[in-house]
Amino acid sequence: MKRAYPTPQDAEAAFYEALERGDLEAMMDVWAEDEEIVCVHPTGPRLSGYEQVRESWSQIFKSRQRLQVRLSNQVRVQGMMLSIHSAHENIQVAGESKPHPPMVVTNVYLRTGTGWRMLVHHASPAPAPPPAAEGPKILH
Amino acid sequence: MKRAYPTPQDAEAAFYEALERGDLEAMMDVWAEDEEIVCVHPTGPRLSGYEQVRESWSQIFKSRQRLQVRLSNQVRVQGMMLSIHSAHENIQVAGESKPHPPMVVTNVYLRTGTGWRMLVHHASPAPAPPPAAEGPKILH
Repeated sequence: MKRAYPTPQDAEAAFYEALERGDLEAMMDVWAEDEEIVCVHPTGPRLSGYEQVRESWSQIFKSRQRLQVRLSNQVRVQGMMLSIHSAHENIQVAGESKPHPPMVVTNVYLRTGTGWRMLVHHASPAPAPPPAAEGPKILH
Repeated sequence: MKRAYPTPQDAEAAFYEALERGDLEAMMDVWAEDEEIVCVHPTGPRLSGYEQVRESWSQIFKSRQRLQVRLSNQVRVQGMMLSIHSAHENIQVAGESKPHPPMVVTNVYLRTGTGWRMLVHHASPAPAPPPAAEGPKILH
């Protein structure tokens, strides 16, 4: 029994919860079935179709890394059937003190007969931010 | 006077023609105005808004490189207002004999009052393909 996501935001929240927990069934529940879904992991090839996408998440979740993902810089354009979300993914890996440079992500959601589902996930590394200017610290 | 693109495919053709010619005005004609447009050049930061996007193309076109871009592996999902195109960009730079590894691209087009316009262009390098198996050449 698939969950129904009433809004693209609900589908997006479920996607990142599944990613953080490394939960393959929850992850694949978010994706549209019967559609030519597209997934690009950072620096990875363009995957399309349910089987390729499922296999990629299965491989990724084998590492059993626990992640926390915070979205920032969000831009959204929603139509009747499709919703486009651009954001930065700020990823913190459990046990690592330093945050990773953000990923740039384009997520597309499709309204289906069973609510909104993910159609496209395209993530790529953002360039590292320039080092903070190291001027003298002036306290007051 | 802006051109009207009757279909997302017309807008896409105009986008790649402008890219090949390095024509800034033609390029910016393709993009939606009055929308929070998003552009990610390969390995680049997420740009949003007309001014950031225009400035980035202006910088890119200063190199005056002539390109040929051939799309392959195309996947399209079109709604009433939004059209999502995933593809590989196969780029040939004039004067270079070797083709570049393909870029993975997600292009999103929006139906506006003046036809279809680009809303999102997200390009990132695809991994280099594995070297061809170097077995003995068997001619027949």
